[in-house]
Amino acid sequence: MMSNNKCSISPHGGTLINCFSDNLDGLSQEANKLTSITVTKRVLCDLEMLAIGAFSPLKGFTGEKDYKSILESMRLSSGLIWPVPITLQVNEETYNNIKNKNKIVLKNEKGESVAVLSITEIYKADLEKEALSVFKTNELKHPGVKYLFESGNYCIAGEVKVLKHTYDEFTEYNTGCEGTRKAFKEKGWKRIVAFQTRNPVHRAHEYLLKVALETVDGLLLHPTMGETKDDDIPADIRMKCYREILDKYFPKNRTMLVVMPASMRYAGPKEAILHAIIRKNYGCTHFIVGRDHAGVGNYYGTYDAQKIFDEFKPEEIGITPIFFEHSFYCRACNSMASYKTCPHDSSEHLILSGTKVREMLKAGQILPEEFTRPEIAKILIESMKEKVKT
Amino acid sequence: MMSNNKCSISPHGGTLINCFSDNLDGLSQEANKLTSITVTKRVLCDLEMLAIGAFSPLKGFTGEKDYKSILESMRLSSGLIWPVPITLQVNEETYNNIKNKNKIVLKNEKGESVAVLSITEIYKADLEKEALSVFKTNELKHPGVKYLFESGNYCIAGEVKVLKHTYDEFTEYNTGCEGTRKAFKEKGWKRIVAFQTRNPVHRAHEYLLKVALETVDGLLLHPTMGETKDDDIPADIRMKCYREILDKYFPKNRTMLVVMPASMRYAGPKEAILHAIIRKNYGCTHFIVGRDHAGVGNYYGTYDAQKIFDEFKPEEIGITPIFFEHSFYCRACNSMASYKTCPHDSSEHLILSGTKVREMLKAGQILPEEFTRPEIAKILIESMKEKVKT
Repeated sequence: MMSNNKCSISPHGGTLINCFSDNLDGLSQEANKLTSITVTKRVLCDLEMLAIGAFSPLKGFTGEKDYKSILESMRLSSGLIWPVPITLQVNEETYNNIKNKNKIVLKNEKGESVAVLSITEIYKADLEKEALSVFKTNELKHPGVKYLFESGNYCIAGEVKVLKHTYDEFTEYNTGCEGTRKAFKEKGWKRIVAFQTRNPVHRAHEYLLKVALETVDGLLLHPTMGETKDDDIPADIRMKCYREILDKYFPKNRTMLVVMPASMRYAGPKEAILHAIIRKNYGCTHFIVGRDHAGVGNYYGTYDAQKIFDEFKPEEIGITPIFFEHSFYCRACNSMASYKTCPHDSSEHLILSGTKVREMLKAGQILPEEFTRPEIAKILIESMKEKVKT
Repeated sequence: MMSNNKCSISPHGGTLINCFSDNLDGLSQEANKLTSITVTKRVLCDLEMLAIGAFSPLKGFTGEKDYKSILESMRLSSGLIWPVPITLQVNEETYNNIKNKNKIVLKNEKGESVAVLSITEIYKADLEKEALSVFKTNELKHPGVKYLFESGNYCIAGEVKVLKHTYDEFTEYNTGCEGTRKAFKEKGWKRIVAFQTRNPVHRAHEYLLKVALETVDGLLLHPTMGETKDDDIPADIRMKCYREILDKYFPKNRTMLVVMPASMRYAGPKEAILHAIIRKNYGCTHFIVGRDHAGVGNYYGTYDAQKIFDEFKPEEIGITPIFFEHSFYCRACNSMASYKTCPHDSSEHLILSGTKVREMLKAGQILPEEFTRPEIAKILIESMKEKVKT
């Protein structure tokens, strides 16, 4: 434990939101009569995040007043910090189809009704401004910018009532904000550090997780399970890795694995703030922010996602960020370390690039034990073999 | 960095005290005419701590109102947290000799005048109550209790003006509160963790120091250099070890070695609070509290020195405690770890008792590399050889 924070942390804005409908039959019947639109996987993830309270205090898709405020100042119009608008974009055709409706039903790609949206307004997005504000670039090479510009100029705003989980994989690990908070309470954890990841846990991250865990009560391993980039390791392989590393190398009573059903936006610093707020909603008191958090390409400075926290008062963010350097195995230290704790020449450091790791795995080469635990390397090599077979 | 604390931390009570005289010649002349008493090494250490601001806001030896308040509530009569009275105890003979004086001079064992004390009051100490309050025991086997009961029933209170350093070893490392704060500023460190120790730094502590350092800007290695127990490693050997471990295993721009010229009281939890306040005065923002901090024998529960921080509001203490478990090398983890981060059976753990370590060193046996860095083991073995020679 570090310091004396004895109470559980409040959700962002003070109240945990639950957008699941409490009248499923009634709403389903109503949904059958409504005009429908089919939404993307990204929107399905956003719906899931809204439903389970992860986007508290949001109850639906961002309206124009909040949209403008967020792009200008990273705050809702109420003044509460919110770094990225959660919009439901549609194109002109869809807009014309629904512009006179008060309510619509949102459907997934299978044609199932998943949520009813009570429309409060429809407004034109300023995509150029949004791209530059959220992503710091308008280049279409940026996956977040690409999605933005391809998703339509109109934003439909309003509260949602969700009929069913719109992310339905690894359901036993999808405990939402309320369930996760309850589990923390049952474990007696008061100080919990969350770790966001979209990669398997190699030794470098294991080290940072353990450094963080030494000073708190528990660790929430909280991988992003919605859409990631094509070259990221698939979700099911990652889950195997997460279960294995926790099982073999962490005390059971100090860790929890929960999926975060969000899509990556790759908004770097602003997504780091969003990720921190989400973990606050899950009941975590600390959040790990590494170098180039939620970054892609070279759009953000190495430490931008750490520095951005200085723009707010700590009590406005609520959750405490823990900033880490990159870590590595050092032969001279004979242990894991970072540039903050190791004085030795970089020739002593074992550092493998992502590209090198992928090459080695494809070639069936076992990764060095100091880089990846053998149990994890085995899972990754086997997954490569499966991939070749299919 | 963890969180966004951007300003330097205020001294305890708000103002850094400096009890060195700013009129050395005048005070020396005055001192020659005053009745003198010779003080113990403990008192010389307390004088040094007062002089360099480490006991801020104290300007001298505790008066009766504060004495009673401290024993009752761990607070000065002003309400400010203060866990242990800093008294100047004298016996009846000395009392009779000085009871009508307004000022006296304090001398060291060499007969040198070191400080002038302006007496505000002399009162009878309640030694039994003090022992039970500060040390939780009245057993004379406890070194702090023994000193207390052997040092006289009368307390002389008042502000001191100090003529010279009353601790004059390792002077280049005795930079006091002002000098250390200045050094932090020059290094650009905003978040500094202090580590209190009276032992050489073995791997277990190196690990905890590095865990702490990963999340702040700098580490102050701050050993207690005043009186310790007879079976503790001598100060000069410890200093050799500290310089070596920092030189070989820590980045130079992230660490500082400063001596803390205090005597150990072995007051366990209450001394942990005192140690934290002292480090706050030195300008540190974080303070490591291990298991059984400042303990001796079995007088305190393993976690008492951590739990006591819960009795105060974090902002009253000001400095943030970092609580650690014991750590060790684990063969299955193939790394340092603690019970909080390692799931493996204790048969995988390399743990050596203090007694075992002393035996091995006396026998000239090299300690395992996973227990002590070879450079440190070498210094300790050589010191044992020297000891045998003399």
